[in-house]
Amino acid sequence: MLWADKIRVVKPYVPGEQSKNQNIIKLNANENPYPPSPEVKKAISEFDFDTLKKYPDANSMELKSALAENYNIKTENVFVGNGSDDVLALAFMSFFNSNKPILFPDITYSFYPVWCSLFNIPYENPALDDNFRIVLKDYEKENGGIIIPNPNAPTGIGENLSFIEELLQKNQDVIVIIDEAYVDFGCESAIPLIEKYNNLVVVQTFSKSRSLAGLRVGAAFASKELISILEAVKNSYNSYTLDSLALVGATASVKDKKYFEETIKKIINTRENAVCEFKKLGFKTYESKTNFLLVSHEKIHAKDIFLKLKEKDIFVRYFNSKRIDNCLRITIGTDEEMDKLFSALKEILA
Amino acid sequence: MLWADKIRVVKPYVPGEQSKNQNIIKLNANENPYPPSPEVKKAISEFDFDTLKKYPDANSMELKSALAENYNIKTENVFVGNGSDDVLALAFMSFFNSNKPILFPDITYSFYPVWCSLFNIPYENPALDDNFRIVLKDYEKENGGIIIPNPNAPTGIGENLSFIEELLQKNQDVIVIIDEAYVDFGCESAIPLIEKYNNLVVVQTFSKSRSLAGLRVGAAFASKELISILEAVKNSYNSYTLDSLALVGATASVKDKKYFEETIKKIINTRENAVCEFKKLGFKTYESKTNFLLVSHEKIHAKDIFLKLKEKDIFVRYFNSKRIDNCLRITIGTDEEMDKLFSALKEILA
Repeated sequence: MLWADKIRVVKPYVPGEQSKNQNIIKLNANENPYPPSPEVKKAISEFDFDTLKKYPDANSMELKSALAENYNIKTENVFVGNGSDDVLALAFMSFFNSNKPILFPDITYSFYPVWCSLFNIPYENPALDDNFRIVLKDYEKENGGIIIPNPNAPTGIGENLSFIEELLQKNQDVIVIIDEAYVDFGCESAIPLIEKYNNLVVVQTFSKSRSLAGLRVGAAFASKELISILEAVKNSYNSYTLDSLALVGATASVKDKKYFEETIKKIINTRENAVCEFKKLGFKTYESKTNFLLVSHEKIHAKDIFLKLKEKDIFVRYFNSKRIDNCLRITIGTDEEMDKLFSALKEILA
Repeated sequence: MLWADKIRVVKPYVPGEQSKNQNIIKLNANENPYPPSPEVKKAISEFDFDTLKKYPDANSMELKSALAENYNIKTENVFVGNGSDDVLALAFMSFFNSNKPILFPDITYSFYPVWCSLFNIPYENPALDDNFRIVLKDYEKENGGIIIPNPNAPTGIGENLSFIEELLQKNQDVIVIIDEAYVDFGCESAIPLIEKYNNLVVVQTFSKSRSLAGLRVGAAFASKELISILEAVKNSYNSYTLDSLALVGATASVKDKKYFEETIKKIINTRENAVCEFKKLGFKTYESKTNFLLVSHEKIHAKDIFLKLKEKDIFVRYFNSKRIDNCLRITIGTDEEMDKLFSALKEILA
């Protein structure tokens, strides 16, 4: 190709396997097993479809207001985007713009190095310790920015706010992003810290705790200064990222706190029961503050279990990566789905 | 701020003014005055909202199939994104990756220089001639890529396919993007040329001719090679850009060809009547193949007319830019809206 030298060559992120088969048990993408709040359907059904001819509100003010009220902050501290991947991509573009390497753990969300490669951001990966915990002192060196998921994925392990605050204390000259994709399942959000630390960005998603992976909504919370930088970069990329239906649906979801809390409670309950079941079957688990569990078996290799579960139409996530290549990341499904998982595991282990 | 040196500073695109007042006549954002196909509402109403808990199809296969069938091409030649701004931003990132300047007209879509600035792409702006036509020989110099809207905006002027083909003949070693945001209003699409030129990318939007600005859907058509590069970059940025409802709604829109053609016909008819009315009132117009007209008055300055129309709750677009600062870009509304516009103009000119 004559034009080959003008093209960007990238190695994209590989999302969890999807299947067209409706009968599979899908525990590989950390989706919520419960449907979204019925208020989402109601709000979209009542929407005047003729107005789709107009551009949506580029500022997403109603959704920002609902989120601001939910977290007792101001709308100027809220940013929304087309899923938290969009929010994170924009945040990487906006805030990691130095020649010094940014820092994130060696075992973490596999999209981070992909964005670094896309935007030419240098990075270093301090190793988690043997128990898969983040080692704070590794983040005290000079750097161009920090991103840490709390709870971390795919380990599921969460840190408390004093850990996050110590990280911020030691890194006041760079932007620190806390990726809270799974925070609602038992971890404490760092959003209250944005008032004290104007270099903190907290990112959340509607795809997990709000059962809205199909609607593509994510948010960031930060100081007014950082939010306006994020808005400027977003408006330099695509002014209208959230469509009118996603805005209406996401707003309705935020306002239905009762449904949200009930769903979370069910998943946490199922998760804690699952921890016991896994232990009984000889699995090691890590303490999870998420809607998934990282597990490894004392005798059988993770990849074998992965393939045998797949034969039984149960999809879990296997990572062919250093240090976690004998682990499986298993999403918490409904109690019925987990019962079927454990029956299948018993057969495989027998 | 201690972190100020790590931040990206940008000057974002400024979209057309929005107003909360429902009673205004909004002819400033080239939105379609007619609602989307009733099939859009039907398809979304029949959607199973419980499935929003799952991620959407990252490949958007149903929408790609509908578009491929519509244009008699293969799905491997189709890319879809979160509005054509998202598609164009990804295309700039993917294809304009050389040290040589890309070329686009001096008067054109004002987002192009914004993306160049965001992605550090050098560019040059050959001037349109005195009749606001693109001068082909200006695009025969060495360059890093070319983007031209056909029809061009805000001039409204369209070129025929032999013009596009000559441009491609002269530029086989770079990627040539034809931005067809307004093509359906009377211009010929370059999509049939993608088979012959593997360096051609054609971009379209659902925001204008399909009355779906609120749903955020855009598409690109190109050789299999270029589409896979675009997919890889998209999957390095955000794997799931289109939500499940947008996918369902956009697919229904593409399948309703009859409604699409009727709507186009009404707008073209209104536009041609408007050309006569403008001439009667002493306005100069440029031949438009779009859903807007660029006009200037022989006696009264565009900015004065703009402000006086605004006082009467009629919003049109005024650009405070070189060469077009005495022009107004006026979207074609319904016949009723245009009647009100002309009554208002008569009062202003009286």
